[in-house]
Amino acid sequence: MDKSSAITIACIQMEPSFGDTAANVEASVRRIGEAADNGARLIVLPELANTGYVFATREEAFALAEAVPDGPSSRRWMEVAAARNLYIVAGITERDGQSLYNSAVVIGPSGHIGTYRKMHLWGQENLFFEPGDRGFPVFATPIGRIGVAICYDGWFPETFRLQALQGADIVCVPTNWVPIPGQAPDREAMANILVMAAAHSNSIFIAAADRVGTERGQPFVGQSLIASYTGWPAAGPASRDREEIIYAEVDLGEARRKRNWNDFNQILRDRRTDVYAEMLGSTVPRGWY
Amino acid sequence: MDKSSAITIACIQMEPSFGDTAANVEASVRRIGEAADNGARLIVLPELANTGYVFATREEAFALAEAVPDGPSSRRWMEVAAARNLYIVAGITERDGQSLYNSAVVIGPSGHIGTYRKMHLWGQENLFFEPGDRGFPVFATPIGRIGVAICYDGWFPETFRLQALQGADIVCVPTNWVPIPGQAPDREAMANILVMAAAHSNSIFIAAADRVGTERGQPFVGQSLIASYTGWPAAGPASRDREEIIYAEVDLGEARRKRNWNDFNQILRDRRTDVYAEMLGSTVPRGWY
Repeated sequence: MDKSSAITIACIQMEPSFGDTAANVEASVRRIGEAADNGARLIVLPELANTGYVFATREEAFALAEAVPDGPSSRRWMEVAAARNLYIVAGITERDGQSLYNSAVVIGPSGHIGTYRKMHLWGQENLFFEPGDRGFPVFATPIGRIGVAICYDGWFPETFRLQALQGADIVCVPTNWVPIPGQAPDREAMANILVMAAAHSNSIFIAAADRVGTERGQPFVGQSLIASYTGWPAAGPASRDREEIIYAEVDLGEARRKRNWNDFNQILRDRRTDVYAEMLGSTVPRGWY
Repeated sequence: MDKSSAITIACIQMEPSFGDTAANVEASVRRIGEAADNGARLIVLPELANTGYVFATREEAFALAEAVPDGPSSRRWMEVAAARNLYIVAGITERDGQSLYNSAVVIGPSGHIGTYRKMHLWGQENLFFEPGDRGFPVFATPIGRIGVAICYDGWFPETFRLQALQGADIVCVPTNWVPIPGQAPDREAMANILVMAAAHSNSIFIAAADRVGTERGQPFVGQSLIASYTGWPAAGPASRDREEIIYAEVDLGEARRKRNWNDFNQILRDRRTDVYAEMLGSTVPRGWY
């Protein structure tokens, strides 16, 4: 391993307590401290880690949302990132004027790096949040290029592809994965399969931090996973029901260094961009799907 | 199950003998007959099933290639399709003038339906074949809309997405999967993971027929798989090293009927086409990947 780009990634699998924002953030900060003690530099928290997930009404969601990065949750995470020299990607309920977003804040030792707003909203989220309006940004940082996706975004191969094409080394995935119909109890989550496929077919790392527990009747599936650029797990999947931290020591540079699979093939350059135009969907009559 | 669109699919996992084209086609016809005896209506054969895969020289490849659908291999498959009322998707080494293609011929009871030419060439194939020049066609047939992909095409989520957006119910995948570095011997092939992810995230069936055996030093991994529109296996994965036929009785209409996952989400309509433009790659500086 070329140690120049070696780094330890941690995904914190935890169970927020709905509505207890300050307590959830403090619990996350304790775990961030534990991960830092164990050498982690890049730490991923679940989706909506500060508030919990299952809002009952718009008013409840508005009451729990806060500004990013000027609200208390982001400020607390920036504090610990500065104190421990960390990069943190954390799911947060964002309020921007009269709009709410299911967001992830990207924080470094020097403060706020950027914010990602979930592009593909799942289920009842459509009642509370606006769809993301900032596309798929990739943030250049001293430790590598970081992309972000949140939960259902991962069901769209476009999410990972667009970030890989912008040079992402890793996509961090704060998530609240829910059970999928047809999931066999004895095998890995479909969400894990999607992560592995995306990591392999883009040659990028993907670090997904899920929550556990049942909130207002909605169960979550755990199984946080850090996939190598090969597609295979570098850490996890974590348990289905316990709070825990998974760690992977990786060389983020390998994602780009190892894309030439043989004398002829490089997975991103082999794309047939000459015929992918239809992928936009704009030329396809909707009746077909 | 709405029996009106119920059908039995068979993937024939076999080992062609390099260069013995007539014998390979006869062996495939015997297995097609066996599959038909067991109720199959749609039958998938491996990539380059008539000739074998590992060409040593361009001249050798040219000598073994034939016209599609007027050459002897296609004609023989059309004969059995007519006799047994079958749909067949078979990998074939195609010659068209001075160009060779790694193709799949799509055949129905009434004859030739269409031809797919592999869009993403793998390794040494680049020395023998032209890249596919017909895009990703989807063929409307009485049993459903059929798309085709061949082996390395499956590494590109665009392949399946483009066919799903054109209304494909099933993508048939004649393939010659080779070992992937990092593959753990005790778990399913990365190729299977890619198939499951694509089936799930497009809500389409995928039927992949692989070959087995080692040819001129190149091993193949078997593990043919029929994935349901849910992503989970409907049949297989098959063994890693034995000739066999896997069967799945499915309702192809379910692929489209079951795409509304809840009150808000339909996987293909949820695509953020407003921001996928970059997916074409044309606007991304190549230095990034």
